[in-house]
Amino acid sequence: MSKKQSGSDKNENSAYKEKIRSLQRLLVAQQQTLRAKGLPIIVLVEGWAAAGKGSLINSLISELDPRFYNVTSLAVTPEAQMRYPFLYPYAKALPENGKIMFFDSGWMEDCVRRYVRREITSEEYKKRVRAVNEFERQLRDGGYLILKIFLDIDSEEQSKRMRILRDNYETEWRVTEEDLWQHREYEQFRRCYESFMEKTGKLIPWHVVDGTRRTATYESLCLLTGLTDRSLEEGRFNGKPFKEDFPLLQMPKLSEVDLSPVMPDEEYGRQLKILQNRLGELHNVVYRKKIPVIICYEGWDAAGKGGNIRRIAKPLDPRGFDVIPIAAPEPHELARHYLWRFWTSLPKSGHIRVFDRTWYGRVMVERLEGFCTEDDWKRAFNEINEFERQLTDWGAVVLKFWMHIDQDTQLSRFTDRQNIPEKQWKLTEEDWRNREKWPQYEEAVDEMIQKTSTENAPWFIIESNDKKFARIKTLKILIDALEKACRERLK
Amino acid sequence: MSKKQSGSDKNENSAYKEKIRSLQRLLVAQQQTLRAKGLPIIVLVEGWAAAGKGSLINSLISELDPRFYNVTSLAVTPEAQMRYPFLYPYAKALPENGKIMFFDSGWMEDCVRRYVRREITSEEYKKRVRAVNEFERQLRDGGYLILKIFLDIDSEEQSKRMRILRDNYETEWRVTEEDLWQHREYEQFRRCYESFMEKTGKLIPWHVVDGTRRTATYESLCLLTGLTDRSLEEGRFNGKPFKEDFPLLQMPKLSEVDLSPVMPDEEYGRQLKILQNRLGELHNVVYRKKIPVIICYEGWDAAGKGGNIRRIAKPLDPRGFDVIPIAAPEPHELARHYLWRFWTSLPKSGHIRVFDRTWYGRVMVERLEGFCTEDDWKRAFNEINEFERQLTDWGAVVLKFWMHIDQDTQLSRFTDRQNIPEKQWKLTEEDWRNREKWPQYEEAVDEMIQKTSTENAPWFIIESNDKKFARIKTLKILIDALEKACRERLK
Repeated sequence: MSKKQSGSDKNENSAYKEKIRSLQRLLVAQQQTLRAKGLPIIVLVEGWAAAGKGSLINSLISELDPRFYNVTSLAVTPEAQMRYPFLYPYAKALPENGKIMFFDSGWMEDCVRRYVRREITSEEYKKRVRAVNEFERQLRDGGYLILKIFLDIDSEEQSKRMRILRDNYETEWRVTEEDLWQHREYEQFRRCYESFMEKTGKLIPWHVVDGTRRTATYESLCLLTGLTDRSLEEGRFNGKPFKEDFPLLQMPKLSEVDLSPVMPDEEYGRQLKILQNRLGELHNVVYRKKIPVIICYEGWDAAGKGGNIRRIAKPLDPRGFDVIPIAAPEPHELARHYLWRFWTSLPKSGHIRVFDRTWYGRVMVERLEGFCTEDDWKRAFNEINEFERQLTDWGAVVLKFWMHIDQDTQLSRFTDRQNIPEKQWKLTEEDWRNREKWPQYEEAVDEMIQKTSTENAPWFIIESNDKKFARIKTLKILIDALEKACRERLK
Repeated sequence: MSKKQSGSDKNENSAYKEKIRSLQRLLVAQQQTLRAKGLPIIVLVEGWAAAGKGSLINSLISELDPRFYNVTSLAVTPEAQMRYPFLYPYAKALPENGKIMFFDSGWMEDCVRRYVRREITSEEYKKRVRAVNEFERQLRDGGYLILKIFLDIDSEEQSKRMRILRDNYETEWRVTEEDLWQHREYEQFRRCYESFMEKTGKLIPWHVVDGTRRTATYESLCLLTGLTDRSLEEGRFNGKPFKEDFPLLQMPKLSEVDLSPVMPDEEYGRQLKILQNRLGELHNVVYRKKIPVIICYEGWDAAGKGGNIRRIAKPLDPRGFDVIPIAAPEPHELARHYLWRFWTSLPKSGHIRVFDRTWYGRVMVERLEGFCTEDDWKRAFNEINEFERQLTDWGAVVLKFWMHIDQDTQLSRFTDRQNIPEKQWKLTEEDWRNREKWPQYEEAVDEMIQKTSTENAPWFIIESNDKKFARIKTLKILIDALEKACRERLK
């Protein structure tokens, strides 16, 4: 027999429900404004197993228009099965402008659980914490609102809830082996959660909500509507650039590069054969050692990117190699963080991928054509350095080639293309327009190479007035880098 | 010591190499024309383990521009791990216009291997063969060139090649347990390959190339360049519509539908609660039984799709449910078969997905606005029936709702939206323009409902002049369908 509620309890209860409902209605109205203004929101709900994350999210979305939000719940897959950087699944799930993404557990659970499982070392754990901070700051600076909630319950409560779930045939499957293991390791998890929040709460704060209190939903709704309100008032955030101390390599300016080197035909044929053979052999090793390889091509129009890439492609097994041509972003790409389309194009570990043009468009064409703000492209140098460090921390080999020619060479190649029918498709009006902006581009490229040439992801200026010389040089750099990486990976 | 080649052998050898090279060069030239004309090609290379499929593909692509082709090699994953229809990975990998996709094994290997492994019954196998024929025809009719090569070697040759691979430390990993098993079951595989080719070779022929002959590469190059040549001459293929005998349900015309039913407020509140509760319970069963559920919403502007969807969403666990709003296709979607963007948006098994507008855009807006040819939309009725049968053969529940209102109701809702500030975003110029074309749309919708209402994927006309009535009716239909599906799935 259930105890009868007293009159005042009942009143309190229905008053509480009314408060919830009014906040839910407020959120519905906000959602329409967010949609209209194109503001994206990320709501990260982390917390203990059985703390009620799913139910909380259910109350948050209860009245929302399901066309404009999504819920992502990603299991923590065993490290050995992860063929991508640990932030990849979250980056992939980024909401587009005007939409809300709820993460039912996210990068926090991923980092903490792997660490407690001892799948990653404390060195790796530290790098991941740094990457999380970078990731969140980049999203914030790119205009994303981020709300981070940690739903907290104590060990006793967790035990009680798990017992209730397991005692019921309908719900017993909800308690997994992993959850039981977490309960046994409760103290270790608590320490780790707390330390993670301390280390990642400076820029975008954590909100710890007590999951045992019946007001958890109300508190969370207040947080979400409050954040949304402030942001709607302030408008879309656009982060300021700041200087970060990345150890940079000394690089020459383009004007200092000697473009005279040439490669005699015979020597070229001989070397090409040897180098391509070696590259083919290395591909097998790279594949077996599961090393991801990312090769970036940038350069002047008609510098010979296509032919250069073809010489690299030739000896490679296409089951583990491909080329991604990067064109102007499409609408669904423009509706997200500018690095999103590159995050989602990363190769699997063990694969070699060539990017024919890259994320550096941000500091070249987007800068010069005004497709982003000054703050945007100035911030990008640092953001790209961070992104590439996350790639090399994952284990990737990252190489960046600037195919360099002088203006005379470009002109004569343009003229060639104009005159040879089979080559005409390669030459567009845009090429001529870009050519007129050579000095501005040269300035931008110089700045880019100076500011993003890091030990882990270096730029190589490839003298390409002589295409044969350029191809041999590129192949040699690639082979050196792969040999080094293969030596360093023991397994 | 190697045996010295005789003079005539040497000449023959270098003559052969020259023939290969000249065909490779021809292919390079063709590739540029294909690119310029936006013609996509699919090259399916099937055949025995160790027959040399990889090497053959390598020779075909050897001189090609890697920006305009890709190679896909998909392992046959165990059936239990496949959460999508069996054609899904191939549909996902379709090349865009102007590009070539090489499949290093594809849907043939998938069907045959699963059948020999006894992962699928002969009933299922037959359905898959039918689906393959439909898939290939649809691609051809949509302008794809398809070349199908089977690389053949006999049992003795296979044994010899595997031995050589396994004797070498560098290559031994290439021979998998699966390959060895195939060799043991050689006779069964041969029967199955032959029967598959016989059943799928009528429309788009199979080319069996003898993999033991050294001319295999040359023969394949001839096939590919020959096909390309003919297609470049003939131009992009656009298939004619034809009648297929799909068992269709008797459906009323829109004008015959009685729109008067209403649902009193009190009754609505009571029923809504009961039905939503039941739907929430069923979601658990659907999830555990891994039944994919696809719910399609189409209807007049302002018919109440959004509110209807929200009532369904409310009791569902967002970890297993979402809504995909379908807008006008983006450039990368237009560059592929029109069903591609729906293939790639299918839910995982066990998930419920609502499509807010669907592939039926083909026979409504695309038909009426002239975004496709008359043959295109006339062919689409049959293509869509096939597509949906492939979904239900996979095990999906497919429901299609037409939200129906009359013109007066639409006008009064439009006027409402115009006058209420929070609703103004819902009304666009396009809505008014569509309204002017009501008679044309009604004709198109009538034809659509008549021609695509199948037993397995039925249309339901939802009387929506009264939104409450519409919501209750939709919920009931959905619950009935899920209950039926849950009863039928034993596991």
